[in-house]
Amino acid sequence: MPVYVVGHKSPDTDSVCAAIALADLKSKLGLETVPGVQGELSPESKFVLDKFGVDAPEAVADATDKQVFLVDHSDLSQSLDNLDKGELLGIVDHHKIGDVTTPNPVEVWTWPVGCTCTVLKAMYDFYGVEIPKNIAGIMTCAILSDTVIFKSATCTDADKQAAEALAKVAGLGDLTELGMEMFKVKSAIEGTPVRELVKRDYKNFDMNGNKVGIGQLEVVDLSLLDSVKGDLAKDIQALKDEDSNHSVFLLLTDIMKEGSEMLIVSDDASVVEKAFGVKPVDGKAWLDGVMSRKKQVVPNFEKAFAS
Amino acid sequence: MPVYVVGHKSPDTDSVCAAIALADLKSKLGLETVPGVQGELSPESKFVLDKFGVDAPEAVADATDKQVFLVDHSDLSQSLDNLDKGELLGIVDHHKIGDVTTPNPVEVWTWPVGCTCTVLKAMYDFYGVEIPKNIAGIMTCAILSDTVIFKSATCTDADKQAAEALAKVAGLGDLTELGMEMFKVKSAIEGTPVRELVKRDYKNFDMNGNKVGIGQLEVVDLSLLDSVKGDLAKDIQALKDEDSNHSVFLLLTDIMKEGSEMLIVSDDASVVEKAFGVKPVDGKAWLDGVMSRKKQVVPNFEKAFAS
Repeated sequence: MPVYVVGHKSPDTDSVCAAIALADLKSKLGLETVPGVQGELSPESKFVLDKFGVDAPEAVADATDKQVFLVDHSDLSQSLDNLDKGELLGIVDHHKIGDVTTPNPVEVWTWPVGCTCTVLKAMYDFYGVEIPKNIAGIMTCAILSDTVIFKSATCTDADKQAAEALAKVAGLGDLTELGMEMFKVKSAIEGTPVRELVKRDYKNFDMNGNKVGIGQLEVVDLSLLDSVKGDLAKDIQALKDEDSNHSVFLLLTDIMKEGSEMLIVSDDASVVEKAFGVKPVDGKAWLDGVMSRKKQVVPNFEKAFAS
Repeated sequence: MPVYVVGHKSPDTDSVCAAIALADLKSKLGLETVPGVQGELSPESKFVLDKFGVDAPEAVADATDKQVFLVDHSDLSQSLDNLDKGELLGIVDHHKIGDVTTPNPVEVWTWPVGCTCTVLKAMYDFYGVEIPKNIAGIMTCAILSDTVIFKSATCTDADKQAAEALAKVAGLGDLTELGMEMFKVKSAIEGTPVRELVKRDYKNFDMNGNKVGIGQLEVVDLSLLDSVKGDLAKDIQALKDEDSNHSVFLLLTDIMKEGSEMLIVSDDASVVEKAFGVKPVDGKAWLDGVMSRKKQVVPNFEKAFAS
C-alpha cells in the first residue's frame, strides 16, 4: 500500500499542489508515495492542474490503516478522519502548530512563510532533487494563490524568491498576469450553489472550547458578490445551526481594495469587536487591510475568545 | 530583551548543546538570541562545555513575557513554566510531536534522527553559516551522547554523517574514545545524592491521562550501580508519592551489554508486561536490547496505557 500525502479539508490550491509536490519528492527519495485530496477540487485548483497537465489527486477521507504525510495543516479538525488509526509520517506546513501529536518521532518542516510550496521548494533543494517543469508550474500558482499575488500580510521574501525560481523552472512569464487569471477563475460565482461558495475555503477551529468556522472568498472586486451576499448570510446561519457552532464567519476579501467584509453569525458577536475593534452592523463588518485568515483573523479571534 | 533558546527540563547534553548552537545560528542570522538551560547541568554536560571552552547557558525557568525557541522537546510538561504567557518563535527537535501549540505560524524543524544537533548541523548548512570550531565540538559530543556512541536504536545514518562532519570542523580524532570518555563521566555516581541520579535525565509524560515519570541512567557497566540500586528504588517511590504520579520508571542502561534494567513503581505494574512482555519481579525487569527511552520505552508505554 502506498503512502498518502494530503492537505486540509476544503482543499485550496496550496493543499492540492503541495500534496502533489511532496508525493513526487518522497517517491524520488525512494518511498512510494501518492497525493491525495480531502474533498472536491475548487475551480481554481482545476484550472491550475489543467493548465500544467497534472492529474488530480486521489480522493482520501479516512486515515485508518494508512501511512500519511500531512501538508498545509496540523490541526486534527482539518485533517483526515481517524488520524489516530493510521500512522503519521510527517508534516510540511506554514500554519500555527496545531493539536496533531504522534507517538513516535516524525519529520516536520513548518516555516512562517506564505505558502507550503515555498517550504517544498526548499526541501527539493535540500535533498538535491530536480523539480519537474509541470510541478514547478503548479507550485508557482500555489504561491500566487496563497499570497494573493504577493499582496497578503503572510507573504515573505522567501515566497517571492521561491515563486521566481519555480517560474524559471516552469518557463513562465509575467506572474501578476498569471495570478489575475487565476483569481478571475476563483472569483467566478455564476451558477455555483451558495453552500459551495461558503465551503470553498472553509476551516473549523476550536477556540477556547468554542466551535468556530471561518470561510473566505477572495474576489477581484467585492461588487461581484452583491447579488449573492444575502444568500451567503442566510447560508452561514444554516451552517452554524447544522454544526452547532458558536460562530461562523465568512470573509469576503477584495484583493484589489486590500480588505475584507466579514459576514457574522455568532452566539456572542462582541468577539468581533474584541478581535478587530470594529462593531458589526447588521451582521457585517468591513475590516480594512485584513486579507489573511491565518495571520490576521485567526490569531485575533484566538485572543478574543481566550479573554 | 534577547530571545532565549531552551531545551527540556532535567537537561541532557543535547538540550544544552542544541540551545547553544541554535542561539549562535540565529544570532548570526540577525536575531539577538541567547542560550538558556532549565535546571542544573549534568556532570557530562559540564565536562563537554569545559573540554571545548564554551560558557554554560543562563538558567531560565519561566517564559512569561519572553520570546523563546524550544530545542529537543515539544511537550508542555517538559518545557518552561507559563509557556503560554511568552511567545514561542520556533522548535528544533527530534522527538515525537508533543502538545505544544501556537496561535501564530512559527518555524519547526523536527526530524526522526538520533539527536537535535544533527538537525542543527543541517540548519547551519541550509543557511550557509559557518559552525565555530568549539560549537562543532560540543555538537559532536551531543550526538555521541544521544546515540550512545552510535549504538542506540535511534541512531540514523544522518547522525553518523553529521558527527563525522562536525568532528572534522572541530579537529577531533577517534570518536569512540571521546564517547567512552564522556560515558565514564556520566557513569560516575560516587558522592552524588540519590535524587540527583534519579533526576539526571528524567522526563514527565501524560499517558492517556496518567502522570508518568521516566528516568534513565546510562553506565558503561551496570555493576557500577549495585551499591545504590536499593536507594534508587526507595527514591523513585518517594518521588512518585511527592508528584502524585501513576508511575515512575527508572531505566538503568548498560551501554556495553546493550540493554536496560528497569526499576518500577506503579499503581498498575501490569503496564510493564503489556508494554514489553516481561513480568517484573520485585519491582525490576531486565529489558534486553532496550536502550532508547524515546524510541523503545515511551511508544510501548503509550500503547500499553491506551489499551
